[in-house]
Amino acid sequence: MPSQFPAPTATPRYSFLDDYSEGAHPALLKAILAGNTSQEAGYGGDSYCDLARQRIRQHLGRNDVGIFFVPSGTSANAISIAACLRPHEAAIAASSGHIVTRETGAVEASGHKIINVAPVNGKLTPQSIQRAVDENWHFPHMAKPRLVYISNATEIGTIYKRDELAAIKQVCEQNQLILFLDGARIGTAVASKSNDMTLQDILELTDIFWIGGTKNGALLGEAVVVKDARLATEFEFYVKQHGSLLAKSRIMGAQFAELFREDLYFDLARLANYCAETLSNGIAAAGFSVHAVTETNQVFAVLPMSLIKVLQEHFIFYVWEKRGDDEAVVRLLTTWATEATEVEKFVSLVQGWSAGAAESRI
Amino acid sequence: MPSQFPAPTATPRYSFLDDYSEGAHPALLKAILAGNTSQEAGYGGDSYCDLARQRIRQHLGRNDVGIFFVPSGTSANAISIAACLRPHEAAIAASSGHIVTRETGAVEASGHKIINVAPVNGKLTPQSIQRAVDENWHFPHMAKPRLVYISNATEIGTIYKRDELAAIKQVCEQNQLILFLDGARIGTAVASKSNDMTLQDILELTDIFWIGGTKNGALLGEAVVVKDARLATEFEFYVKQHGSLLAKSRIMGAQFAELFREDLYFDLARLANYCAETLSNGIAAAGFSVHAVTETNQVFAVLPMSLIKVLQEHFIFYVWEKRGDDEAVVRLLTTWATEATEVEKFVSLVQGWSAGAAESRI
Amino acid sequence: MPSQFPAPTATPRYSFLDDYSEGAHPALLKAILAGNTSQEAGYGGDSYCDLARQRIRQHLGRNDVGIFFVPSGTSANAISIAACLRPHEAAIAASSGHIVTRETGAVEASGHKIINVAPVNGKLTPQSIQRAVDENWHFPHMAKPRLVYISNATEIGTIYKRDELAAIKQVCEQNQLILFLDGARIGTAVASKSNDMTLQDILELTDIFWIGGTKNGALLGEAVVVKDARLATEFEFYVKQHGSLLAKSRIMGAQFAELFREDLYFDLARLANYCAETLSNGIAAAGFSVHAVTETNQVFAVLPMSLIKVLQEHFIFYVWEKRGDDEAVVRLLTTWATEATEVEKFVSLVQGWSAGAAESRI
Amino acid sequence: MPSQFPAPTATPRYSFLDDYSEGAHPALLKAILAGNTSQEAGYGGDSYCDLARQRIRQHLGRNDVGIFFVPSGTSANAISIAACLRPHEAAIAASSGHIVTRETGAVEASGHKIINVAPVNGKLTPQSIQRAVDENWHFPHMAKPRLVYISNATEIGTIYKRDELAAIKQVCEQNQLILFLDGARIGTAVASKSNDMTLQDILELTDIFWIGGTKNGALLGEAVVVKDARLATEFEFYVKQHGSLLAKSRIMGAQFAELFREDLYFDLARLANYCAETLSNGIAAAGFSVHAVTETNQVFAVLPMSLIKVLQEHFIFYVWEKRGDDEAVVRLLTTWATEATEVEKFVSLVQGWSAGAAESRI
Repeated sequence: MPSQFPAPTATPRYSFLDDYSEGAHPALLKAILAGNTSQEAGYGGDSYCDLARQRIRQHLGRNDVGIFFVPSGTSANAISIAACLRPHEAAIAASSGHIVTRETGAVEASGHKIINVAPVNGKLTPQSIQRAVDENWHFPHMAKPRLVYISNATEIGTIYKRDELAAIKQVCEQNQLILFLDGARIGTAVASKSNDMTLQDILELTDIFWIGGTKNGALLGEAVVVKDARLATEFEFYVKQHGSLLAKSRIMGAQFAELFREDLYFDLARLANYCAETLSNGIAAAGFSVHAVTETNQVFAVLPMSLIKVLQEHFIFYVWEKRGDDEAVVRLLTTWATEATEVEKFVSLVQGWSAGAAESRI
Repeated sequence: MPSQFPAPTATPRYSFLDDYSEGAHPALLKAILAGNTSQEAGYGGDSYCDLARQRIRQHLGRNDVGIFFVPSGTSANAISIAACLRPHEAAIAASSGHIVTRETGAVEASGHKIINVAPVNGKLTPQSIQRAVDENWHFPHMAKPRLVYISNATEIGTIYKRDELAAIKQVCEQNQLILFLDGARIGTAVASKSNDMTLQDILELTDIFWIGGTKNGALLGEAVVVKDARLATEFEFYVKQHGSLLAKSRIMGAQFAELFREDLYFDLARLANYCAETLSNGIAAAGFSVHAVTETNQVFAVLPMSLIKVLQEHFIFYVWEKRGDDEAVVRLLTTWATEATEVEKFVSLVQGWSAGAAESRI
Repeated sequence: MPSQFPAPTATPRYSFLDDYSEGAHPALLKAILAGNTSQEAGYGGDSYCDLARQRIRQHLGRNDVGIFFVPSGTSANAISIAACLRPHEAAIAASSGHIVTRETGAVEASGHKIINVAPVNGKLTPQSIQRAVDENWHFPHMAKPRLVYISNATEIGTIYKRDELAAIKQVCEQNQLILFLDGARIGTAVASKSNDMTLQDILELTDIFWIGGTKNGALLGEAVVVKDARLATEFEFYVKQHGSLLAKSRIMGAQFAELFREDLYFDLARLANYCAETLSNGIAAAGFSVHAVTETNQVFAVLPMSLIKVLQEHFIFYVWEKRGDDEAVVRLLTTWATEATEVEKFVSLVQGWSAGAAESRI
Repeated sequence: MPSQFPAPTATPRYSFLDDYSEGAHPALLKAILAGNTSQEAGYGGDSYCDLARQRIRQHLGRNDVGIFFVPSGTSANAISIAACLRPHEAAIAASSGHIVTRETGAVEASGHKIINVAPVNGKLTPQSIQRAVDENWHFPHMAKPRLVYISNATEIGTIYKRDELAAIKQVCEQNQLILFLDGARIGTAVASKSNDMTLQDILELTDIFWIGGTKNGALLGEAVVVKDARLATEFEFYVKQHGSLLAKSRIMGAQFAELFREDLYFDLARLANYCAETLSNGIAAAGFSVHAVTETNQVFAVLPMSLIKVLQEHFIFYVWEKRGDDEAVVRLLTTWATEATEVEKFVSLVQGWSAGAAESRI
């Protein structure tokens, strides 16, 4: 149960808990400051949002898409889905999807059923989508599948390859499904060494998607990209109705304008991925397995409980899933701000413990 | 219809359009910067939000109230009302109330009817509330009146006096109505020369209210104050479900901590009120009447259309309501950032026009 | 507050309370019985619903409209409006409209704002609709007016003439508004002596409307007529989602098939209107005025409180609205089942009282 | 996609498709007729509903429960769940549950998430409920589990034994979960040979449940039984808001009064169960297996496709689930009205085919 009254805090430990424990990247703060002095139109009509929209459109290679800034990922998802669906239409999502597991029923709160599908490496597949469509046929007694929700990177850090996304797009078109991509971590996905897609590809292969700011250097803000012209005309109403149309949207505009001025958005993501890769390699080198392959900024490692206890003296991270009494999956998140020395310290603790354990087995 | 594609802009004119055309007050920006470096718990669990909550509680003289930071006024209203009501319960509001006229049906979107009441000077009265209760008696065919929504300052800049609020509270208690106060402009209300209430009084005389940051110096953020213990326990769920639980809530915490460190919150409001008073007095001195008494930072003046056209060459403001062909009510908004020279220029144009018109009548 | 535990009942008095105090017309009961024996497809796919749809379509002169049977007026209204609107769109209705005053916020419960308009003789006018559109212009901050709700007969028993409805249709088309007509009492409207429209006219001049069964001889059931082909394809989903798709819809099909076999639907309505006219004329002859002209089966008479008390010894009816201490508006409803002797008795009590009062004034 | 325009129908075949293909039981029709003549209070305040409530209460052995009549199972479920939950609260249900698979997202349409749990023989278990609670812990990011939905009989015809329900009630109490039982087929459950519970037991072991009329002899109507006094006070508002408060509720009252006058409700269910048992035994005797044990009026048999084709020439039933290319699960439903000769004919076709196939194997 959430508490408002702070517990006494212990000695600070370094956090690999999530990718929003830090503030904004200094360049973005500077952009906020620079954008602070002028009088501007409210509610996203300001020159900073205009500039950000212009730069993102340039990056996407299309001038005719609608771009809308909203303060959180949950609002980006709930608004997009509410805007795309009619009352009897449902979304298809992986049972591990953020809208299913971490948004307090926001999609249902706007009236829509989510049809759960078992994920494969955190992902949907053309087969699993088709099965969901085939099983939801008994009209009008079943809500009509109409939208597919995927996230890239996924909730366990894996990414979609270009041909995977193209195949999903195809099955969507065959079944008249809108393809919606949650891009809370689209930066780390595109910056991943395994990746073979650009943002332009993603624009082409989806109907609506968003570019996450909060988890990639910004203080707040996600940019929803809407291709459908009619939907783009209406979209601002939904943003407003959901309480997400900020009067001083310039704070989001200024940050996105800076993120997409040159290549900062992907530079930051690359930094996050690099730290995750270092952690992952170090843990693997110590002989431990990973729960999901490390393609972006999330590391899921299977560690002994006794090691976990040692690590918890110095670090904060999620114990994601118990595996019997002796082992657990832990989740480690990195960002552009992750300190190299802390990564080293973590790896060295793991490897030290591993060496000690090896010794004691002799 | 909203447009994303910016029209060519004319020469910049000074804006009295609203109270969110400027960025943040420099002290708040500084606070954001200072709060940027540390790792912090997400979603409002950070030390800045803790500090802000502590200072606001201190200011309110009560340690047991829940305080929640949300990014916009619409989210503060929609979340609070959704959290207070059961599905069959309705809110009572003035037909001029912000939730009725400027929030794209956000309250209805969460399922609740708003019973409209004709305002008196922008305000509800015990009589108008009692009448709304009396007229909505035919249960279960009518939604049950259960919450009263008021705003202070009101949408036309007037304020509630202590005895007015106490009388409303009494009628609410007699009818088991929750009293909810929208404090988007609570700063200018409390800082008004006509005011005789403190924030402590408002806390005492309402069940739930919020302190607006966006319209009083902050880049974003409103602080919802929840007295009911059970509701406070649940409230964070609603904030999250509405997409308003920001991962890096520190950006709101840092600003509110600064606003309530000493008396900055009210100092800024006093500045805004002072400019409005100057405008209002200047306009009155030129012989024009006001549509609503200027108690806070909103001036509603009745001006000739020909004068309005002259003013529009130099200033932006809303033409609020036509009065026949020759006159209209205009709305002028001021803030802590309003420039004294622009106020002077506006007044001098009005008075110059008035003098010229007087001359031409001779 | 509703109570489930019956109070001890006094001597039965004859009821002019509403038009659903009686059961079904005998011919409809017979139809239900005749339709009881066969196995039939569920959820409206049965042969009785097919027959009813066929007969109503024949009556309407169009074979391409969708017809859907739902169990109540509130469900007919809530489903139709939910089906027509997107989340940011609002309905315009008279403040006396059934969806505003007697449906427990069902429209708002499906997420939509109702913009209230002052009625003229219980009706909307082209002017009042245009004004509502003009006042709700501030997009995206205001919900977008998109549907006009009217009822015919209205909640006070008045009816729309053909040119009134045509003018409303025109203003709707000019503003891209869907015109929706609540036909709970469409029978008495069309059967009214003042009426100059057929059901075919109403079909032509609206976008969606319904034909009320419950208040005109049926045990339950309203037939929603949907012209738009795409909406008709989807409509059954909404009926189901709102819990209004009855497994054994034959009970509604059988009744509507009988009501529209020949002219029974309008015969019953004429009977109701005749009784109301007799009541109204009798009351007027006694020197009392009516609150609204009696065009259908509702009589609104202004009577002295002392007479009302006498009448209440023998009859049940609503005291609709107090007028000072001495007078009140009472509402009297009639149906096909209203007994002529009771109508006579009521009139004779009124006239007797009036004569007595006249005498005592001498 | 639903169609309103009837396809040309083939020679009628006998239907085992569902338990709502027939009309009302003659005794109920007679009750409707008998209840047709008097003037009655509307919206459930009539003497027939009062009598039905009194008889059901008598049967339940408690005078203090609220009883509400609604026209359909979907409305009973959606209304009950909407009435029990606050916006951030979720229901737990089997993934095979009616609210998950056959109600067009009606629960989500009122804003609530359903947490899906894999069923065991169509049922929830204390373990599966506890696991759902344990996995939904991350507050406020996850909707809070607050209600458990079960159906008895289940969607595959199995029933809960007394100790199973008691164990579920216990886990509900430990986790502050409301236990809600969908009784669309509660008649066949209680009348089952395997059953060891009375309606009184079910009342004691749940918080809210309903007694299905539609699938057990009535033309329409379900009776929701509400134990919680505060909820019972409010419940009628929800019934009305969902469009389910019928003006002439007497049609439901009259039927339920007859069903619970003596023991008709369970007599009808026993008849349905008997036919299903005969079908099931006959199919088993022919050497075919069942997909779920036949405890009530649903038979799920695994049959060869070639046999299914033969049967389809004479009967209508659902092919529920393909099993490879050669076999499928078929669903057969029986009711009080099922004709013994048709049951015999079905069994004899199955056994004949089986004998022929055995012969051809020699």
